[in-house]
Parts: sequence; C-alpha cells; structure tokens
Amino acid sequence: MTIVTGIHAVAEFLRSSPERVLRLSIQRDRRDEALSNLIRIARDHDIQVTQVSRDALNRISEGTVHQGIAAHCQEFQPRTEAEFESLFETLADPFLFAIEGVQDPRNLGACLRSAAGAGVDAVLLPRNRSAPLSSAAFKSASGALSSLFIVGVANLVRRLEWLQAQGVWVVGTDDQASKRYTDYDYGSSTLVVVGSEDVGLRNLTKDRCDALVSIPMEGRVPSLNVSVASGIVLYECVRQRALRNAPK
Amino acid sequence: MTIVTGIHAVAEFLRSSPERVLRLSIQRDRRDEALSNLIRIARDHDIQVTQVSRDALNRISEGTVHQGIAAHCQEFQPRTEAEFESLFETLADPFLFAIEGVQDPRNLGACLRSAAGAGVDAVLLPRNRSAPLSSAAFKSASGALSSLFIVGVANLVRRLEWLQAQGVWVVGTDDQASKRYTDYDYGSSTLVVVGSEDVGLRNLTKDRCDALVSIPMEGRVPSLNVSVASGIVLYECVRQRALRNAPK
Repeated sequence: MTIVTGIHAVAEFLRSSPERVLRLSIQRDRRDEALSNLIRIARDHDIQVTQVSRDALNRISEGTVHQGIAAHCQEFQPRTEAEFESLFETLADPFLFAIEGVQDPRNLGACLRSAAGAGVDAVLLPRNRSAPLSSAAFKSASGALSSLFIVGVANLVRRLEWLQAQGVWVVGTDDQASKRYTDYDYGSSTLVVVGSEDVGLRNLTKDRCDALVSIPMEGRVPSLNVSVASGIVLYECVRQRALRNAPK
Repeated sequence: MTIVTGIHAVAEFLRSSPERVLRLSIQRDRRDEALSNLIRIARDHDIQVTQVSRDALNRISEGTVHQGIAAHCQEFQPRTEAEFESLFETLADPFLFAIEGVQDPRNLGACLRSAAGAGVDAVLLPRNRSAPLSSAAFKSASGALSSLFIVGVANLVRRLEWLQAQGVWVVGTDDQASKRYTDYDYGSSTLVVVGSEDVGLRNLTKDRCDALVSIPMEGRVPSLNVSVASGIVLYECVRQRALRNAPK
C-alpha cells in the first residue's frame, strides 16, 4: 500500500486514479474548504473516509507533511515494457526521459514533477536501480505520478539500444561533459537520461549515449539538484521543439 | 547557532567560512576518508572536534541526514543593504535574483543552490517574508549559502524600485503570465524574482515588475517546484547572456 498525503497530492490522485484510492484518513479536529471538497469527491467515488486523531495521522503519514489528509492507495505499478512499446508506436515525436539510480524518493518525485511539467511522453525507471515510488516520492511529485506514463525497465542500457534502433537520440547529462546542454541540437526523437545524485550516470550508460551534455556551473557549488538539472535540460528540449514547430 | 550537516555541506562551509565554524560533532563509530579529511581540515583551523554517539548526532542534526558529521556554526548573517549598494556599484552586468516568501527552508536552500549554479551576483531575501536560513536550508543549498552574496531586504518593492532607477530590469515569474519565459529578452541588467510555493508573487510585487513571465506546463501538474522554476528561468538568462557575449 502507498500512502499519499497533502491536499494537492491527494486531490490530484483522486482526480486521476480514484479507482486506486482504498480509503482516506482525515484529521478529526481539522476542517477547511479544501478538506471538505476532498471528502465530497471521495464519497462520490464510494471511497471510505475515516476520521482519526492528529497523532494517528502523523503515524500514517510517515513523517511527510499531511495537511490533515492521507489517502491509502494501491501500490503504484509502473507500466510494463510491452505497454511502453505499444505507446512508442503511437508517438510521432518521441520525447522521453530516463532516471537512472536516483536514491532519494523526494528527489525522484521532484524529477518526475519536472518531467510532467515539460510534457515528456514517458519516463523510464530501471527496476532495480531507483528509489521506491513511496509516499515521499508521491508527495514531492505533487501529482505528477498519476499523469505520467512511467515504465519499469529491466535493463536500461538494452532499452536505450532498442530506442536508438528506432531512431531515438539518447542524450545523457554529465558534469564532466565539454558540450553545454544548450549547444546540443535535440532532434524530434529524443531521450534525456540523468544519473544519481552522487555519481551521475554509470559508465555503461554514458557509453551508450549519443551525446553527453553538461550544465555550466558558475558558482562554487559543484552541481545542481538532480530535479533542477532535469528541469533545465528538459525545458531546453521544450524550447527547441517549440522553435522548430513555430510557423516560419 | 546554525547546525550544518552532511559531508558536502560541511566541507563547503569549512572551505569558505572556517571562521564561522565553532566546533564539529562527529559520529563516534563512523570512519571514512571523507570524514577524516574534514577532521584534518577542522584541526588545521583550530576548530574543536567532538566525538558523539549516533543518537546524539541525530538529535543535534534536527532530522536532517548528517552522514556522521555536524558543524556548529555562527548564525548566518545576510549582508546589509548598504553592503549590497557597494557591491552593486562594482557590477558591470548585474545579474540578480530575489526570492519572495518561500516558506519551506528546504525549498529556499534549493533555490539558493540553483542561483549559485547560474552565477547570480546577489540574492535578495525580504527579511520578514522568507523561511529561515536554518540547517535544513543549508543542507539543501549544498554549500551555496557560503558562496552567495545574500542580502536581507527590509522592503522588497522599494528595493526593486531603487534597482529600476539604476537601470535594472525586473522580471517576475507568474504562472498566469501570457509571456513565456523564453520569449523575453533578458537585458544585461536583470533581476529575476520568484514568489512563494503556494501563491507566487504578491500583487504589490507583480505590479512593480517590468515584465511577468511563465513557464509552460505541458502535463497536468499545476506548477513546478520553485527551485526548479528558478533554475529554468535563471539558466535561460545564462543562455541569453552567453549568446550575447559570444564572438560574432
């Protein structure tokens, strides 16, 4: 079971995947319009609503900020690779994102939020090399999980090879790369892959990339947060795609 | 007193501001090269190093991930507005950033990390409308606090007016703005201002801006994390500045 907490995250979940919400726990002594709205929506979907004490809700929420509400949801199940291949066939202009080995569920959630904002068609997550899609990930994704096509991938390098064979260009981010991310011409079929917070992409994965790009760092800070780096590179793709598609 | 935790954050702090480190607490049963290095650096600066139990370090670290180390530091003191005015006189091409009302110290720290990466000359923080520069902020800033020129501002709107009178263009981010952030021509003297996580910029501040820009949201996620949005807009400024300064 996955616990989703917080007004925004629960609202987005109820909107997009009500069938996965098993029940809601609401803090007994808290009443405001946002909570009342969520209770109403839950009842419309025949979802059970339980009033609990603040202490009980704190325990249920596993330390995340709950704002008086927690939804008990079926475990998040990423899509299969077969489902991804079916989706891929329908994409005219594939815009894909892969996250290799991000360890902190909050960072993972934040990366997914950046990816959803940028409008990627799918996110590839290696099954055995990624933080769990836990409550903390849901929370920091701020609803993005339910609107994204997230694929669990058994072997990321092999999947990248498959995509390259289908004409997708694979661009990895790497602090050491000499090419700036703004100097790369992202084609219409692009996958961006980012690595873990501490060590970035694995060498095997870097070797598979068609290009490696870096974000220039002006200050003395060695790197950006991985969700910020993801947002910056994905939105550069968005900018270039908009330019390409703009009427001449 | 401010507690700074984690290998990277403490290392950066010791490097940039050793005079502000009062002492280090190290987890007794933990030894690795990174910790040993930090102990050596601390001793070179005559900073006291105390060995403590894991439980004690957990308490000292106030719930942040400490990786076996916490530095007890003098409270972070932002620069004064007089100091900022002196700095400003020396800037040929001012690139400034203001954060209005970000409530979560972790978000504030992450915004500062984005700003440091983009290489802004100074960050303006309204004194009474901002999360504290707490341990959590330090941690997520990942060393950015000590390398940034951070100014505590009594009245942000008045300071923006002052900057405009000096020729700085003030650009605010606003989800509702019809202008995309990539369609704005950031001049050589620019200040970017972002608002709080929930409500964005105050109306008073918006009214003061020369332009408001938004980041297009493709997914169903209503907004990006404020540190991601900051990174995206600041790095668009960096991109445009690099283009302008490139040899023709």
